[in-house]
Amino acid sequence: MNGMFITVEGPDGSGKSTQLQLLVENLKQKGYDIVVTREPGGTTVGNQIREVLLSPDHHEMTPRVEMMLYAASRAQNVEQVIRPALERGAIVLCDRFIDASIAYQGYGLQYDLDQIRSLNEWATNGLTPDLTFLFDLNPERASARMKDRGQLDRIESRDQAFHERVYAGFQTLLKQYPERIVRIDADQSIECIQDEVLDYTIERLQQGGVQK
Amino acid sequence: MNGMFITVEGPDGSGKSTQLQLLVENLKQKGYDIVVTREPGGTTVGNQIREVLLSPDHHEMTPRVEMMLYAASRAQNVEQVIRPALERGAIVLCDRFIDASIAYQGYGLQYDLDQIRSLNEWATNGLTPDLTFLFDLNPERASARMKDRGQLDRIESRDQAFHERVYAGFQTLLKQYPERIVRIDADQSIECIQDEVLDYTIERLQQGGVQK
Repeated sequence: MNGMFITVEGPDGSGKSTQLQLLVENLKQKGYDIVVTREPGGTTVGNQIREVLLSPDHHEMTPRVEMMLYAASRAQNVEQVIRPALERGAIVLCDRFIDASIAYQGYGLQYDLDQIRSLNEWATNGLTPDLTFLFDLNPERASARMKDRGQLDRIESRDQAFHERVYAGFQTLLKQYPERIVRIDADQSIECIQDEVLDYTIERLQQGGVQK
Repeated sequence: MNGMFITVEGPDGSGKSTQLQLLVENLKQKGYDIVVTREPGGTTVGNQIREVLLSPDHHEMTPRVEMMLYAASRAQNVEQVIRPALERGAIVLCDRFIDASIAYQGYGLQYDLDQIRSLNEWATNGLTPDLTFLFDLNPERASARMKDRGQLDRIESRDQAFHERVYAGFQTLLKQYPERIVRIDADQSIECIQDEVLDYTIERLQQGGVQK
């Protein structure tokens, strides 16, 4: 595959989705072939699965089922959107991927990490991002930003201890995959962060020989 | 566990759901503690997953995703409904279970049987029915009965070759698990079939020492 698969990760409120959108616009302006997707969702099937996952009514959903639904949405996204785009040489930008399952279901819900890894490896047929931006913002700041936005969904409204475990999980991933995951200090201005993200992305695209 | 886990399997149009309902009523009349559920569905979460699976819009759903959604619905059903009921000593009657995934996704869609088995074994934490009734009706008769009922959903409207592979799959399962799976000739009157199913169930409940 000649494309490049880039993911953004981090807690809700870290600004990752805003930065992703800016990165998409900036790369498009430079003439790159860009495909943007998100998890859970990204496809019609994935969006219906996303609705099941984020419904505030589903407090009875077991961790195992939550994990399977994220993996199912991801499998559809990989097979229908991500792999075909990478195969034609496009840059695929995805809002959350397997790291999010490791952080939220593994560290947050304390579900078996090996099971999450093996289920997701199977679901994606082994697809790993080439580059991941981790938007690093501590749980207190992230939570304060989410409250400013209004209503919280089922995942966001979990308790503070959950969000602290998720945060620690992301920090562990950062140490485990220093080649792939780039830490971005999310407590800066939108413009500063985008400059950093865009510069790094361009550098990696040039290194990887990705064509416009 | 002191309860008994009974499943019904067979093609759409085989009358299995009608027979399940009659069996529920008959066993309740005899004073047994009965829990009835179905797949996909059986729980609020499972019913939402069922809607995603059966929507006629989802022709783009990949076999891998279909398999994962069935397994996710099953995991929720097992953890929330089936295991707690078996643990209190109830009889659980379930409309379709893993055999249906093997027959439809494995034989019908020709998806890897070992992957289906291992995913489902993991999803259900190894739960296997104590007794399975297979309602045996050849594909032509089943298809004719479905057409009489009106509109076909996404699964039912697959081509005849698909339904023939599913049928062959059920026959193979019958040979593989002769202790667990009981063949019922579905081309008889509703009353005859129910007599046979009820007699066999009562015999097995008495053998298994299941209390009223």
